[in-house]
Amino acid sequence: MIQFIVRKTDLGGAARLGMLTTAHGTIETPAFMPVGSLGAVKGIEADDLRGLGYGLILNNAYHLYLRPGHEVVATMGGLHPFTSWSGAILTDSGGFQVFSLSKLCKVTDEGVTFQSHLDGSSHHITPERSIEIQEALGADIMMAFDECVALPSSRERIEDALQRTHRWAARCQAARRRTDQALFGIVQGGHDAELRAAAAAGIVAIGFDGYAIGGLSVGEEKSVMYGMLDATVPLLPRDRPHYLMGVGMPEDLVEGVARGVDMFDCVVPTRHGRTGSLFTSTGRVVIKNARYARDEQPIDPACACQVCARYSRAYLHHLFLSKEMLGVRLNTLHNLSYFAELMRGIRAAIAEGTFAAFRSAFHARRMHNDNGDEEASALLQARSEEVRL
Amino acid sequence: MIQFIVRKTDLGGAARLGMLTTAHGTIETPAFMPVGSLGAVKGIEADDLRGLGYGLILNNAYHLYLRPGHEVVATMGGLHPFTSWSGAILTDSGGFQVFSLSKLCKVTDEGVTFQSHLDGSSHHITPERSIEIQEALGADIMMAFDECVALPSSRERIEDALQRTHRWAARCQAARRRTDQALFGIVQGGHDAELRAAAAAGIVAIGFDGYAIGGLSVGEEKSVMYGMLDATVPLLPRDRPHYLMGVGMPEDLVEGVARGVDMFDCVVPTRHGRTGSLFTSTGRVVIKNARYARDEQPIDPACACQVCARYSRAYLHHLFLSKEMLGVRLNTLHNLSYFAELMRGIRAAIAEGTFAAFRSAFHARRMHNDNGDEEASALLQARSEEVRL
Repeated sequence: MIQFIVRKTDLGGAARLGMLTTAHGTIETPAFMPVGSLGAVKGIEADDLRGLGYGLILNNAYHLYLRPGHEVVATMGGLHPFTSWSGAILTDSGGFQVFSLSKLCKVTDEGVTFQSHLDGSSHHITPERSIEIQEALGADIMMAFDECVALPSSRERIEDALQRTHRWAARCQAARRRTDQALFGIVQGGHDAELRAAAAAGIVAIGFDGYAIGGLSVGEEKSVMYGMLDATVPLLPRDRPHYLMGVGMPEDLVEGVARGVDMFDCVVPTRHGRTGSLFTSTGRVVIKNARYARDEQPIDPACACQVCARYSRAYLHHLFLSKEMLGVRLNTLHNLSYFAELMRGIRAAIAEGTFAAFRSAFHARRMHNDNGDEEASALLQARSEEVRL
Repeated sequence: MIQFIVRKTDLGGAARLGMLTTAHGTIETPAFMPVGSLGAVKGIEADDLRGLGYGLILNNAYHLYLRPGHEVVATMGGLHPFTSWSGAILTDSGGFQVFSLSKLCKVTDEGVTFQSHLDGSSHHITPERSIEIQEALGADIMMAFDECVALPSSRERIEDALQRTHRWAARCQAARRRTDQALFGIVQGGHDAELRAAAAAGIVAIGFDGYAIGGLSVGEEKSVMYGMLDATVPLLPRDRPHYLMGVGMPEDLVEGVARGVDMFDCVVPTRHGRTGSLFTSTGRVVIKNARYARDEQPIDPACACQVCARYSRAYLHHLFLSKEMLGVRLNTLHNLSYFAELMRGIRAAIAEGTFAAFRSAFHARRMHNDNGDEEASALLQARSEEVRL
C-alpha cells in the first residue's frame, strides 16, 4: 500500500519533511502533484514529468469513468500501463466534479444521480461505486467520495452535507476489495472552524491511510483558507500524510507547508501555461505582452529548466500570438519546472531547519514586487500585462 | 553557402543519393523537410526533430513576414537563434501563400498587392522585397518569388504567369545582398509538359543554386504529377539539388526519388498527426476508430519510434477523443518518425543499388492493402475508419 515517514520537522513541528513510499516509487514531501484529469497532463509526456522530478500525479475518476470508462482502463491493466506513467498516481474520487461539472445533479443518502457534462447521459454514483471505479483504475491512492457544497451556503446545508460525507466515507472504507491501494478521507466543513474541527474528528474516527482537506480555495480570502488549515491540520494524525486538495498558488504552497500540509495538487501551472502566465523567481511574466516581442532573455534568467535554456521570451511571445501549440507545451513545461523547484526549495529549507527564513524571504520578494490583487486578477483573466508577484 | 554532391545513383541514374552541406549541417538526400510555417513544427521541439534525424526544415516567409515580422526575426539574429533550431532552414518565398491565403490579391509586373489573412492589412511584395525579407530571416536556402496560378487555368494564363515568374526569378537573383545564403529557382508550367520544359529552360538559363518544381500536387491525378516530373527533372542540372515543393504522400516520395528528386516538403505528417491519421508499415491507422478503444498494441508494432515504444493505440484513441493535445504531439512525432524512416530506407536502397526492388516492394504492399482512392479520401476528411494504403 503506502508508507509515510516524517523525517524532520521545522517551524516548531508544523512544517514536515517526509517520505511517501508507494508501489510506484518514493516521493519526497511536501510534494506538488501535476493534474492529468483525463489521464494526461495536457501536452506533457510521462518522461517530461520524470525529467522535472515529479513522482506522483493526479488523475480524475469522474473524467475517466465517463471516458474511456473505468472498465476500459481495467482491461488495459489499469492507469499505469494505460497512460504509460510508471510513477505513483492518486485518483480524485470525482465528488468535486460530479457537483461542479455535471448537470441535474441530485443527491440522496444512497448516492448522486447526475448527467454527464459530455453527452447528457444519466449516471448514478454511490460511495461503493466510486471505490469500484477507483479500484478498476488502480491508482496508488484513492480518495473517498464526498459531497461538495457550493460555498457560501447555510450552516445547516453544510452540516447536512458533512454528516452525509462522513456516512459515505465509512461506506467507502467498507467497500474496498483491493488491499494494494491506499484510501484517503476528506475533511470538509466549509469556512467554519467549528465544523472543520468536527469534520476532522469524524473522518479521523473512521480511520484512513491519509487525510485530505477539501472544499478550500473556492473563492474565499486567503486568510480564511489559512484559518481553516489552522483549525484542521493539528487535529489530523501526525503519522499520516496531509493533503490540501486543489491548491494552489505558490504562496499557498508555502503557507500550506507552514501549517503541516504534505501534498498539494492544482491546475495552476498547467492552466496558466496554456494562458501564457509564467511563474518566475521575480514575478509573473504574461507572455502575450508586447514588451516581450523582441526580448532575447529566457522566461526567467535564474531558471535552469530546458525551456529557459533554449528559448527566448520573444519566441514564446510569437508562438502565443500565433496560437502555436508548441508555445503551450513550452509554457507548461516551464511552469511545472517552477513548481517542482519551489517544492525542492521548501524541502531543502525544512531539511536545513531554515523554513522560517525561506518563508519570510518568499513573502518579502512577493511584497516587494507587487500585490495579491493583481495576481488574483491575472489568475482570472490572464491580463495583457506583466504581473509582479 | 551550400554544397551538393551526388554520391551514388540508381535506377539507371535517375535516383540519386546525395549530400547537401550547409552552414548548419550536412543533410543526406533524398530528404524530407518537416514544415514549420510560423517558425515551429506544430507541437514539436527542435530537440525532437534532431532526435528523429531531421537536419533541414522549412519555414515560411509569408507567415513570418506578417507575424512576428522579418525585422523582429532579424533583431533576434535570424531564424536560427529565434527558433532555437540549429539545423538547416529553407524559407519558402511566400509566393504560394500570397496567392492561396491572402485576400484581394492583385498582380502586376512590379509585384503583388494583397491583404493579410490575419488582419486585412494591405501589403505589397515584389521579388526584391521577397529577397529582402528572406535575407532578414536568414535561412540557409531561400526560394525565388513566383506567381502561382490556380489550376486548371487556360494555357494563356499559365504562360503569362510563367513569363512573369521568369522575370521575377531574374530580379530575385539580382536583388541578393548576402552571399551566405543559397537561392533556388522554381519551375512552374501547370500540367503541360511543353510549358514545364520551357519553364525549366528559362529558370536554368538564369542559374540558381538549386531547382524546385512548384505547382504540383494541387488536385491533379498522381499520373499527371509524375508525368510533369518526367518532363522536368531531366532538364535540370544534375549537379544541383532538385526540390519537389509541397509533396507529399509516402508513394509520392518514392516516385519522386525514382524521377530524380532530392528534396521534399509537405504538411502531411504533421497535419495527419493532428487529425489522427497515422502512417504505419502495413497501412494507415485512423486512431479515432472505435476498434482501437481497447487495443494494447502500439500504432505500428514494427515501428521503433518513441511513441510506439511507450504508448498503446487505446491510449492514443482516448487522447484523440478527449481532444487532449498530448495526443496531437504523440501522433505527430510518430508520423514524422515514419517519414524519416521512409527516407532512410530510400537512401539505404540507393546506396545498395536496390532501389528498384525497394520501390516494387513498397507499391506491392500498397496494392495488397488498399487503393489510392481511399487514401485520397482519408487525406481530405480523416474518415472514421482505418484506411489501408
